[in-house]
Amino acid sequence: MAFGIIAAGGRGARLGATVPKFELELEGRPLLAYTLEVFQDAPSIESVVLVVPPDRKEAWSVSRLRELGLSKPAVTVAGGTTRRGSVGLGLLAVEGESGVAVVHDAARPLLTVELLERACDIPAGADGVVTAVPVTDTVKEVDSSVVTATLDRERLVAVQTPQAFRLDVLRNAHAAAERDAFEGTDDASLVERIGGRIVVVEGSRENIKVTYGEDLERARVVLLERSGG
Amino acid sequence: MAFGIIAAGGRGARLGATVPKFELELEGRPLLAYTLEVFQDAPSIESVVLVVPPDRKEAWSVSRLRELGLSKPAVTVAGGTTRRGSVGLGLLAVEGESGVAVVHDAARPLLTVELLERACDIPAGADGVVTAVPVTDTVKEVDSSVVTATLDRERLVAVQTPQAFRLDVLRNAHAAAERDAFEGTDDASLVERIGGRIVVVEGSRENIKVTYGEDLERARVVLLERSGG
Repeated sequence: MAFGIIAAGGRGARLGATVPKFELELEGRPLLAYTLEVFQDAPSIESVVLVVPPDRKEAWSVSRLRELGLSKPAVTVAGGTTRRGSVGLGLLAVEGESGVAVVHDAARPLLTVELLERACDIPAGADGVVTAVPVTDTVKEVDSSVVTATLDRERLVAVQTPQAFRLDVLRNAHAAAERDAFEGTDDASLVERIGGRIVVVEGSRENIKVTYGEDLERARVVLLERSGG
Repeated sequence: MAFGIIAAGGRGARLGATVPKFELELEGRPLLAYTLEVFQDAPSIESVVLVVPPDRKEAWSVSRLRELGLSKPAVTVAGGTTRRGSVGLGLLAVEGESGVAVVHDAARPLLTVELLERACDIPAGADGVVTAVPVTDTVKEVDSSVVTATLDRERLVAVQTPQAFRLDVLRNAHAAAERDAFEGTDDASLVERIGGRIVVVEGSRENIKVTYGEDLERARVVLLERSGG
């Protein structure tokens, strides 16, 4: 069983939006509704902590989540000023001492139950699982716009969420990051930093992060294909 | 002035297509037609070498290119078994001793004249220019599915084509790569390998590589937006 933490942070400034990204509508439903549906349907998910910007906490009350079909135990908490801080506050609201915590960004509305279940299945000997896809671009390291190296893309992966961790390890990792003011770009990096062993499982190219306006269009296309349209 | 080399290699196996990728149709025109149009319209481009799979050479004769609106000096040559080999064969067909060679993958049909011109403008002291966009994903290095490092994405770029080089440097780089059977994933990596200095200029998120079926959909969306639709 796993505790779900849905990080619904960013304001979507790059989308030119005044509403938070997860409230943008796709086919008449807020992006967050898609994620909630998957967390409801995934058998491994026991409960859900939703982390939103403080000024959106009332709007996303548990009764609203119920209206959107989430019947599992749930709580909405106010996030912090960074992604890492927000997930850390979400972790504080997880009522459990052991088990698995699975973190997902609400800006990725196209995850599936299958993908979420795959993340939650942490193999023996590992501290966590990240979903990831191969890197298809050539990636170079630069210093002031001058190329310093071309990386071997066979050894690289592009990481997504969901990411799942042993709850105690993730708590330790967040405590250490908070102490050292280390932000990281994902939760796994916090766990790696304290020596945790992270394994990669197959993500999905469809599980895009909605960052730019064109991404909403892409998301629409994926939804259309899924519904057989 | 710059010599254009359009690399139209891959078979598009990932698209499940039986025709080469650059022959896939987008709004009734083969992908390659979009690239040809931009090379025709870009003032810096003096001539075009088109590299296609050997069995598609007749189909893409110069008269066909003329029909598609390319009036600049042009030649179609048969490519090799690898991308690097194909560009190398294209280079052999460039009639010039000095100047700039600009390489573009035909699988990126959405480049623009502005982008192509930007690539061709190699700054003093540099041997080449790559167009690139910021890396938005968290990228990790893995070894047998275990994460070994999370890279600092602030220092990374995702490289595209067009890529432009001083002609003599690119020739030397390809000769060295051929000698050492070094394939690389882009032309800049060959130039870097012989000590060349490559600078990064801003690419475009719209300049996608059509690799999967969904990419054709994305390309259609971009075209629609450009036409004001």
